[in-house]
Amino acid sequence: MSQADRLLRACRREAVDVTPIWLMRQAGRYMSEYRALRERYPILELIKTPDLATEVTLQPIKAFDLDAAIIFADILPVLEGMGLKLEFVKGEGPVITPPLRTASDIEALATPPAEETLGFTLQAIKQVKAELDGKVPLIGFSGAPFTLASYAIEGESSRNFTLAKSLMYKEPKAWHSLMEKLATVVGNYLRAQAIAGADVLQLFDSWVGALSPTDYQEFVLPHSQRAIEIAKDKLDVPLIHFGTGTAGILSLMKQAGGDVIGIDWRIDLAEASQQLGLDVAIQGNLDPVVLFAPVDEIKRQTAQILASVKDRPGHIFNLGHGILQHTPVEHVAALVDFVHEYSG
Amino acid sequence: MSQADRLLRACRREAVDVTPIWLMRQAGRYMSEYRALRERYPILELIKTPDLATEVTLQPIKAFDLDAAIIFADILPVLEGMGLKLEFVKGEGPVITPPLRTASDIEALATPPAEETLGFTLQAIKQVKAELDGKVPLIGFSGAPFTLASYAIEGESSRNFTLAKSLMYKEPKAWHSLMEKLATVVGNYLRAQAIAGADVLQLFDSWVGALSPTDYQEFVLPHSQRAIEIAKDKLDVPLIHFGTGTAGILSLMKQAGGDVIGIDWRIDLAEASQQLGLDVAIQGNLDPVVLFAPVDEIKRQTAQILASVKDRPGHIFNLGHGILQHTPVEHVAALVDFVHEYSG
Repeated sequence: MSQADRLLRACRREAVDVTPIWLMRQAGRYMSEYRALRERYPILELIKTPDLATEVTLQPIKAFDLDAAIIFADILPVLEGMGLKLEFVKGEGPVITPPLRTASDIEALATPPAEETLGFTLQAIKQVKAELDGKVPLIGFSGAPFTLASYAIEGESSRNFTLAKSLMYKEPKAWHSLMEKLATVVGNYLRAQAIAGADVLQLFDSWVGALSPTDYQEFVLPHSQRAIEIAKDKLDVPLIHFGTGTAGILSLMKQAGGDVIGIDWRIDLAEASQQLGLDVAIQGNLDPVVLFAPVDEIKRQTAQILASVKDRPGHIFNLGHGILQHTPVEHVAALVDFVHEYSG
Repeated sequence: MSQADRLLRACRREAVDVTPIWLMRQAGRYMSEYRALRERYPILELIKTPDLATEVTLQPIKAFDLDAAIIFADILPVLEGMGLKLEFVKGEGPVITPPLRTASDIEALATPPAEETLGFTLQAIKQVKAELDGKVPLIGFSGAPFTLASYAIEGESSRNFTLAKSLMYKEPKAWHSLMEKLATVVGNYLRAQAIAGADVLQLFDSWVGALSPTDYQEFVLPHSQRAIEIAKDKLDVPLIHFGTGTAGILSLMKQAGGDVIGIDWRIDLAEASQQLGLDVAIQGNLDPVVLFAPVDEIKRQTAQILASVKDRPGHIFNLGHGILQHTPVEHVAALVDFVHEYSG
């Protein structure tokens, strides 16, 4: 089996030679190659310049024996395309101005096709595909409607999501209208990435763990489902549906769709596998902070995860969330090699 | 049945006339009476002056038909007693200086009895009990070893707990030594509160949801268990064991102990009840942000929660975490009354 097939086979729950591994935010600040580029370019310039996005995407592929590349991009430029302003403020992260607060703010949002507003990422996908030359598959991605809606309403990272949830409860019509627009834009963007060459898609609903199961079901599920339907319609592309803090809503996330459900470390992987059933693949779930541990501890926890689902078809190894900034690079290399070695 | 018995009976899973309700952080900034006092006194002065702590504790009891008072205190003065410095920095919240970083920092920590270092809270408990005169029970509380250890190591609120978990992985002996000290201090503090007159105790492990089940089991469970054993030893006082983000570790929290397991809104209450079994009571689980919704929506979600466990003995209604600062006071009143009305 070639490394080109491993991830795709796991997505389809077919037998694999060794467990495939890729890492969320595998191109990032923990790599000196990345930091060198970031000293010269602001993050949005890296994302919006296809040559640079291509270079960054390939950095971890050259450094580690990873089973997939993921296009270097960000979830928030989607909101720029809809008419909001996005800035990365030093020390504070992304800021959206002006944040959405009213039904008329939402009515004013555009839903342009990705080709018009996110062409830089589609172009980068084409270039990365050419460079990879079939060695490993390429993952395209988008933020999910809820996570994007929360950013757009809160205007920045949030602790309690008071504004987003308040809009949901107080103006359910405006909320659903916003989520419908986002589902359309997100679905089309994912689809366009697959058409541009992405072999696998991931829908990041990173913040969905802030919701109760009933709120997820009523205010979010139909829209994630719609985005996934649009993305996959008549295309043979597997989709990974990822969230954090989702131990209480796994079956609902499965209902919303996805060939693979991505989970974080806050639930035992075997327990999650049992809740989800065998008709969907799973991705996860090492705590990213474990990569700060001594290599022996990394191996111990990784072996435990792999052993817990060893007889289950369709497991993709990943962290439970993105690699953290000061993660030792040599620990990342040790993890990737150990996953292949232990599962082989 | 008098209101004096309702909460205690629910803790013991005995029949009640209506579901008891109290609210985490029920004395707080959402109340104008509280804000008026906070304009005159810094928070640590309110906590450390028994007359003031008594006044604040009673504010929500006078304003709402709550089934319990909870002593006005904070989880962090425990760390002061152990030799660390605690400050509340405006706009940033609590800061611990210097934070714990090494085995010798941990070795230097004292484990004084609560009577020596937290006498102000024990005295406030006595005064509140006298004022309540048996009308409703009084809850005493402490932070749990993990949440306190994380504060002491990180020095402040944390997103990823990288420093705390790194110490856990890199220096497990030092970690366990810290947790043993905390279990002793926390257990004795809870016990002293019960002896001073607290009718019920709550162990707040607010941050425990950051951990994987295996890390919880190895690095935290034995110490929470020890704290609970010390607290309850030869005393007939029910204990509520609370955490947020715990959908993946409920059975482990039950194993650690507690007559009641407190959960947040990220898991369906009936599902949590099933996972926990009927030999323990449960507390929860409305999302605090729902209190920003129109009253009809508050009632709808509250009715759903109450209905989902209506045949289960031992349910205490609460939010899934503390009341948020700008919560409308009249919504709190509506919630308290509706819980009694709907469950009666």
